[in-house]
Amino acid sequence: LDYQHVQVPFEITLWIMLASLAKIGFHLYNKLPSVVPESCLLIFVGLIMGGIIYGLNDKSPPVMDSDIFFLYLLPPIVLDAGYFMPSRPFFENIGTILLYAVVGTIWNVFGIGFSLYGICQVKAFHLQDVSLLHNLLFGSLIAAVDPVAVLAVFEEIHVNEKLHILVFGESLLNDAVTVVLYKLFRSFCEMPAIKSVDVFAGVGKFFVVGLGGVLVGLIFGMTAAFTTRFTKDIRVIEPYLSYLTAEMFHLSGIVAIIACAMGMKRYVEANISLKSHTTVKYFMKMWSSVSDTLIFIFLGVSTIGENHEWNWPYICFTVIFCLIWRALGVLVLTFFVNRFHVNTITSKDQFIIAYGGLRGAICFSLVFLLPDFHRKKLFIAATTVVILFTVFVQGMTIRPLVDLLAVKRKRESAPTVGEQIHIRFLDHLLAGIEDISGHWGQYYWKDKLEYFNSKYLQKILLREYDQPKSSIVLLYEKLERKHAIELAEAGQLGHAPSHPSLLNDDRIVITDKKLEDTLNPDVLENIQEILARNLYRIRRTGPAYNRHTLPGETEPVEHAKEILILRHKSL
Amino acid sequence: LDYQHVQVPFEITLWIMLASLAKIGFHLYNKLPSVVPESCLLIFVGLIMGGIIYGLNDKSPPVMDSDIFFLYLLPPIVLDAGYFMPSRPFFENIGTILLYAVVGTIWNVFGIGFSLYGICQVKAFHLQDVSLLHNLLFGSLIAAVDPVAVLAVFEEIHVNEKLHILVFGESLLNDAVTVVLYKLFRSFCEMPAIKSVDVFAGVGKFFVVGLGGVLVGLIFGMTAAFTTRFTKDIRVIEPYLSYLTAEMFHLSGIVAIIACAMGMKRYVEANISLKSHTTVKYFMKMWSSVSDTLIFIFLGVSTIGENHEWNWPYICFTVIFCLIWRALGVLVLTFFVNRFHVNTITSKDQFIIAYGGLRGAICFSLVFLLPDFHRKKLFIAATTVVILFTVFVQGMTIRPLVDLLAVKRKRESAPTVGEQIHIRFLDHLLAGIEDISGHWGQYYWKDKLEYFNSKYLQKILLREYDQPKSSIVLLYEKLERKHAIELAEAGQLGHAPSHPSLLNDDRIVITDKKLEDTLNPDVLENIQEILARNLYRIRRTGPAYNRHTLPGETEPVEHAKEILILRHKSL
Repeated sequence: LDYQHVQVPFEITLWIMLASLAKIGFHLYNKLPSVVPESCLLIFVGLIMGGIIYGLNDKSPPVMDSDIFFLYLLPPIVLDAGYFMPSRPFFENIGTILLYAVVGTIWNVFGIGFSLYGICQVKAFHLQDVSLLHNLLFGSLIAAVDPVAVLAVFEEIHVNEKLHILVFGESLLNDAVTVVLYKLFRSFCEMPAIKSVDVFAGVGKFFVVGLGGVLVGLIFGMTAAFTTRFTKDIRVIEPYLSYLTAEMFHLSGIVAIIACAMGMKRYVEANISLKSHTTVKYFMKMWSSVSDTLIFIFLGVSTIGENHEWNWPYICFTVIFCLIWRALGVLVLTFFVNRFHVNTITSKDQFIIAYGGLRGAICFSLVFLLPDFHRKKLFIAATTVVILFTVFVQGMTIRPLVDLLAVKRKRESAPTVGEQIHIRFLDHLLAGIEDISGHWGQYYWKDKLEYFNSKYLQKILLREYDQPKSSIVLLYEKLERKHAIELAEAGQLGHAPSHPSLLNDDRIVITDKKLEDTLNPDVLENIQEILARNLYRIRRTGPAYNRHTLPGETEPVEHAKEILILRHKSL
Repeated sequence: LDYQHVQVPFEITLWIMLASLAKIGFHLYNKLPSVVPESCLLIFVGLIMGGIIYGLNDKSPPVMDSDIFFLYLLPPIVLDAGYFMPSRPFFENIGTILLYAVVGTIWNVFGIGFSLYGICQVKAFHLQDVSLLHNLLFGSLIAAVDPVAVLAVFEEIHVNEKLHILVFGESLLNDAVTVVLYKLFRSFCEMPAIKSVDVFAGVGKFFVVGLGGVLVGLIFGMTAAFTTRFTKDIRVIEPYLSYLTAEMFHLSGIVAIIACAMGMKRYVEANISLKSHTTVKYFMKMWSSVSDTLIFIFLGVSTIGENHEWNWPYICFTVIFCLIWRALGVLVLTFFVNRFHVNTITSKDQFIIAYGGLRGAICFSLVFLLPDFHRKKLFIAATTVVILFTVFVQGMTIRPLVDLLAVKRKRESAPTVGEQIHIRFLDHLLAGIEDISGHWGQYYWKDKLEYFNSKYLQKILLREYDQPKSSIVLLYEKLERKHAIELAEAGQLGHAPSHPSLLNDDRIVITDKKLEDTLNPDVLENIQEILARNLYRIRRTGPAYNRHTLPGETEPVEHAKEILILRHKSL
């Protein structure tokens, strides 16, 4: 036995396999997933497995490595999220999302940091050695809403699109703020004295980190789009490369991968074949779902162990302050947002936004990345409790609350073509009005971008741009084809010279040449397989070529039965 | 800049990206791929890159790590090969393949080993310090035909199916022999004295390694098939896990992964959805093509450097002996095979089998895994030369030779349904004859296996086995649907109440409700996208809503032109 040799890949695939088996298990029992979010169940499984490992080995189970999390597990989830993000609601609410993500996160960081510092001053709690900077550092890692946790819960509760994009967009874009503040406070902790220059540098750095991420993402996205011009091969490595590059330059990798995915999507989809497109879609879904499962299981496993220092007041007040400051932040910011918008955010929506501020694996990985100091274990314990509280308590109650408050849900059906036409019409109308009135609003910019895209970008990035695609004709053809299939399925294709029925007398009469001409190899292969199987069955029900049975002993009944079944099916 | 942090994934993705860009580059220039196999071009690119790295750094470029090769690069290629292996010709020729793979490989190992030992006795060559055991060890790693190299070349020359499966099947199954002999000689090299018990243990071990691999593969294959009963999620980790497990127990990983892939294919395909199936297929193709590209590029890169000890006689005689012993082996073995078969292997086929014995990355990785001894660099040099000789000289001349000898090619079209029916009919007839005559031949066993499969395995492994699938009816429906689409595309669907033409007057008249009812969300989304784009164009060609242009200045001409283009397209 040579376990050492294959250990790394073997353990990885074993974890993936166990995790997916656990997932299959949940879904076999139908009631559970409708009450408990999958993320909770996976953490629960992780806790049990961690407990078993702890019990058997008598030492802490392995903790999820922060590097593995940030380099291998997080990117696929963010890529998937960015690629399938509905771009229209995202850009319509980009102002509000940015306000929540930037101002809201800063508000939370300082709110939580300062109020926890206040708690530390109470002598009875024995926390006087935790400095203000350490509290702020802790605030910076605990304040950020986690995209993985939000996605896992919000995908199941189906709130309306605007509400979803507000919470989810915030959780994605706050990465830039979190990265800057976390690194700023961490370097402040190690500095002997802080100058005001450093603070200003931090503010400047925020723009560099955010906009730099967007830039890196767009460059890789355009490269990806450009290379798909020359190949039908499919790859999804460019977004990943953009993430790694951004991380390398200390920019926001999450922002980069989202910019890359959103930028390349349109061109890549136009360039690659339909089958490649299906594969890319499924591949991303598969990859992100594996990562997602692993993250939650490892979150559970890592919780067990001896990494924790328990201090009731600090941990309880952390949870309370997280809730209070988020609620206050949402209220205040929404007040300003609503003053400038016609389509306001209702108070029910505000409650869900505040309540949906789940924390997850990002906080957890950041707290383990903290430099060693004597209260690190307290921070780890507090972070773990906040994550478990938000994921379990908030995650499990948010669905009943959404039902109770009758929050506006996502509409079940996609908008009809008529609605779509009217929305488009209004868009163009508003762009015209903005143009005439000289107001540079979102419609104006959208229109300009669209013009730039069709004038320059498409020519460079699309393979077949020179031929104007008559897509209305394609649509018409598609409808006709659809209709023809329906007719064929309903058996109304009367005048068609149909193939002789295959069921008559169980004889198979197919003219070979004709079939070969009309069918492509894939279909033909499929038919051959079907024939192979059926012929087998015919042989089985026919004489058994056996010395010990006489011909005609058993077969007629079975034969007739089989024909009956086939006829029954066809009617 | 924090390069250290992201180094590993960054370099991997960068290599993948560069490799696929190189591949895209080749295919842009059409003539090159028809003369030179892709593998040669990739090695050539690797050589250039290795040269650049060597020139810049003044030290040897990184050598392909044997662990990475065996654990990460080889499995996907073998999985892909095993999954798409045509099972009928494989099992029809399994006897011949095994003879080539087992006896042929042993023949080559001892032939090359002993004759090289003879060369070492010539004093003028200064090779007297290379012992017989070392020569046999070298023979065991250089004798095995490489599946990756064979696949890369034979996929492009399209020889007939039997010839292809003979060479390719041998290259896959000889893994068990190579593993055993290589490990045996390596342990003999380290032993003070060799007892005859050890030799017998080696012979026994061969069966354990080969059959154990099959067993491990089948267990994982059945597990994979069983789990797909309960989920439509797709995973391809079971074959990989079977490979790792086999390697862990020192069994043949290649044999295991092939057994797993061939065993699970049938059930998995029946259980998962069509879309999942497409994804699995594309995913395996993508994964194996990435691995393939990386292997050949790294083979080129690793060649450059200071790992070589040059000894003209040893290297030249290695190449010559490899050619001679393979040719002799094929001749002798085929003589015996032809005596027992009606459908004999022609002398042209024998020549191609002997000439197609390409060596590749497996030899290369094995030679680097050798324990350190003073002549290791000589072995590395000889292996590199043999690989480059077989891949470049044999790989590039085999296509012209196949043309010149007029070797029977693969038939262009798939067998017709009629042929298929007759083949099946003969199979069942022969099974019956074998049964009556009491001869347990291949048809008898195939029939028994098929019976066991439909009686037991399918019931356990297939999701919807209890409903008898009337697949002939499905086929009929498929043909009807196909026919209907053709009719629709030819515009002959006369009596159908077709949707009002979308082109009339450029007005779009679609009744919303109807569309929504008849189309599924995917199609609808697509239509919406098309409409969105086209409406945009209509707006663009329509009045520009601009203060500086009067309405009606430019649009009528463009408008008319666009309608003309659309009409032209539709005719």
